[in-house]
Amino acid sequence: MSDRAVFAWVIDGLNRRLAEPSGDPKQRRVYNALRAWIVSGELMPDMRLPSSRLLARETDMGRNTALGAIDQLVAEGFLVAREGAGVYVTAVGFAGLSDTPNAPTSDRLSQRGRAVLAVSPDDAVTHPAFTLGMPALDRFPEARWRRVVRRHQRPGAQQALHYRTHGGHPDLKAAIADYVRLARGVVCQADQILITHGTQQGLGLVATLLADGGDSAWIEDPGYLGARAAFQAADLRLIPVPVDDDGLDGSAVASAHPAPRLIYTTPSNQYPRGVTLALKRRLALLETARQHEAWIVEDDYDSELRYVSSPLACLQGLAGGAPVIYLGTFSKTLFPALQLGYIVVPRALISRFRRANARLFREEDPALQAALADFMNSGEFAAHIRKMRRCYRRRQAALREALAPATNAGLRLSSGAAGLHLVAYLDSIAQETRLVDEGAAVGVSLARLSTYFIGGRTEPGLVLGYAGADEAEIARPGGWLARAWRASQDDGS
Amino acid sequence: MSDRAVFAWVIDGLNRRLAEPSGDPKQRRVYNALRAWIVSGELMPDMRLPSSRLLARETDMGRNTALGAIDQLVAEGFLVAREGAGVYVTAVGFAGLSDTPNAPTSDRLSQRGRAVLAVSPDDAVTHPAFTLGMPALDRFPEARWRRVVRRHQRPGAQQALHYRTHGGHPDLKAAIADYVRLARGVVCQADQILITHGTQQGLGLVATLLADGGDSAWIEDPGYLGARAAFQAADLRLIPVPVDDDGLDGSAVASAHPAPRLIYTTPSNQYPRGVTLALKRRLALLETARQHEAWIVEDDYDSELRYVSSPLACLQGLAGGAPVIYLGTFSKTLFPALQLGYIVVPRALISRFRRANARLFREEDPALQAALADFMNSGEFAAHIRKMRRCYRRRQAALREALAPATNAGLRLSSGAAGLHLVAYLDSIAQETRLVDEGAAVGVSLARLSTYFIGGRTEPGLVLGYAGADEAEIARPGGWLARAWRASQDDGS
Repeated sequence: MSDRAVFAWVIDGLNRRLAEPSGDPKQRRVYNALRAWIVSGELMPDMRLPSSRLLARETDMGRNTALGAIDQLVAEGFLVAREGAGVYVTAVGFAGLSDTPNAPTSDRLSQRGRAVLAVSPDDAVTHPAFTLGMPALDRFPEARWRRVVRRHQRPGAQQALHYRTHGGHPDLKAAIADYVRLARGVVCQADQILITHGTQQGLGLVATLLADGGDSAWIEDPGYLGARAAFQAADLRLIPVPVDDDGLDGSAVASAHPAPRLIYTTPSNQYPRGVTLALKRRLALLETARQHEAWIVEDDYDSELRYVSSPLACLQGLAGGAPVIYLGTFSKTLFPALQLGYIVVPRALISRFRRANARLFREEDPALQAALADFMNSGEFAAHIRKMRRCYRRRQAALREALAPATNAGLRLSSGAAGLHLVAYLDSIAQETRLVDEGAAVGVSLARLSTYFIGGRTEPGLVLGYAGADEAEIARPGGWLARAWRASQDDGS
Repeated sequence: MSDRAVFAWVIDGLNRRLAEPSGDPKQRRVYNALRAWIVSGELMPDMRLPSSRLLARETDMGRNTALGAIDQLVAEGFLVAREGAGVYVTAVGFAGLSDTPNAPTSDRLSQRGRAVLAVSPDDAVTHPAFTLGMPALDRFPEARWRRVVRRHQRPGAQQALHYRTHGGHPDLKAAIADYVRLARGVVCQADQILITHGTQQGLGLVATLLADGGDSAWIEDPGYLGARAAFQAADLRLIPVPVDDDGLDGSAVASAHPAPRLIYTTPSNQYPRGVTLALKRRLALLETARQHEAWIVEDDYDSELRYVSSPLACLQGLAGGAPVIYLGTFSKTLFPALQLGYIVVPRALISRFRRANARLFREEDPALQAALADFMNSGEFAAHIRKMRRCYRRRQAALREALAPATNAGLRLSSGAAGLHLVAYLDSIAQETRLVDEGAAVGVSLARLSTYFIGGRTEPGLVLGYAGADEAEIARPGGWLARAWRASQDDGS
């Protein structure tokens, strides 16, 4: 093709493109058209392009528009400018590129990615009844909270806008240290607190820094799926530890090889069974950890929400210098989307945790942290927790009342001494499946207890969140469940 | 010891404790004292405690205080209540617990933890001159930004407070999709955007989901330390790929085994060398990725800040269905502490990325995301970028001017076509060390180019951030550096 034929083809094509309706700037459209023709092979290597002057004269665009588009293509290597001789299509061949499929050839995930996905449901909340991990958002003092947050959204020192490696805002670290010391019996100073983007990030950090891929981690069975996902993402070998009425029973896996590097536990309110780790087991667990130089990862996710006696002191504070990393969160006491949590790290490790956290995850918004410190120091946080304890006691009672026709007929519930849910124990997986399916059919979303098990052993049941729905909202689905359970008993399924 | 002797000992001890000044509530102090005596063995298994009535009469506390402390210790298993016979110390032995060291026996990190730590400096910013990754925070329209954020801090739908698996706020995803399509040539729709807690989280997610521990990842050498840390945390085997003036040169490692699963690159503005990946190399890289079913991880961290020609189109958009995960961030265009980034994921993978991200990291604050969407849609974001391009061009010029005495004498600088820093190439590691040490002595913090290398090869130089300090602030340290460099040349070191 002669230069003139190419010029005519390009000018004709651009005129047609520019006549089409589009929201994009003209220069972008010229650039896109030329690039597409080069990549598709319609404009071939070494073909000469019309000059910007000619383009401007023969099409509806200014000289600068033409120049801008051509310069960009030269800068990106699609065109080459030859001194005094015009602009040419680059000699690079785009063969193969034009007929690429519209999706990558491979969409497979890694093995650990698939393991994580297996415990990553699509949590579409449709109705607050029975939703897990959902506090009473309808009772959250949102207006007051937003006011505190707004108050801290004021231009401050520029440093607040930069990356930092402080482990968190000093005011928030101090407020949390005071709180966990007094309310949770944690032995720590403010400099041992590391503010995280919620518990999940804290678990990821602990798993990465304290264990290598292939190392063993004891994990409660049944247990919290988020911990399972974090450990699987970190390539740990999960050793399921059975949980009975006294919490996890380490003696059942004491001879498992290799020895654990991490031991994950929820001692104050085991998730999901709601039992407490007995003192004897706590001492044994500390001893096991010491013996193997393992770390206990204590996830104290909602223990302030206890309805029988005061909250139980944590494992971390049971012995001086216990090999425990303690994790706390505001997701249950305030609201999940806040996404602020904290870990308490022994002093020997804290500066390394701080640096690695800043490297791998960066630190949290200082203004938000300052607002939360304010909310804690003003007493609003403690007041909210007290209020929520009363609220959840009432909501749990409402669920129990709704389920009374079933419990009177033998349905067994967990103690409900703490937390945001009850477990209803069933007779068989068939019964569990039947109730979940029937629930789905009437718009009641039910969580299976059996999915929280990781070893071979499993128990049928339902995990029923009661905190997110008020007394009126829980009555209908609760009543439905009682009837459905009785029907399933009568049918012997 | 008789019961009466124990009673007297306890009452005496408590009276002494209660007489000491303390900010803690009385019940907490009684609880702490009793617990400590039990754990230390001063109160031994099966010893009987004085009744709450006796305690209240003989000490300065009310009956409820005594009851509360005792109930708590019973709930936690330290005391046992025997029906009608009083309260006794539990039979659990605490031997070994009392003389535990005050720190865990082991403070060792995992191998990968140590690898991450090696690239996790303590980034204490002392002076803005030469600081890396620091945009012009002094020019950020912070008052206007805070106003937008405050406007979105209004009580909204309760759902905004709960966990979600949407991949981000729909308004922000739409605004980003529009922006990257137009400004960066990314081929995507809004549903392919996943909002992350900054680039680091995005890198962690990609490494976890698309590669398994031990898989190979190509990484630019020299290259971005954050990517190196993220991949090391994910246990990937790093294959350093040399970077020349045309960007990373995959042909240099084409025969490395095993084949890569991930290929990390910063094609628009290679970090830290500041070169552009040539078109030929881009095509070759796409071909390599296809051949090995590997994923290219395109980190487009600051390419909108380009001072010569328009920003270069990204690799992701070069071919339809390219096997590319594209990462962007607002850390450089707005401010680092904002901690919002995004990844663009092929449609075949996006729902799995969304679910895994929600499981492993949870989603970002919806109010903050809505505020950012607002900031983008109002045009303030684009206006700020335009303004910053002019600002950084001036600041880079100021640095070049301050360094002129050195560059005129042969100091070689990188092109500075884009980004927030210049590289000054040196003659030897000895010279690099000398300048860094001399800088530290006069309070000028200098980053070594050699630390960005991972393979055997290394190059001496300094990586000089120029964006964070204004023209006046850069003059003195810049002038100092020019003199120090000349002195080091004269000394032949």
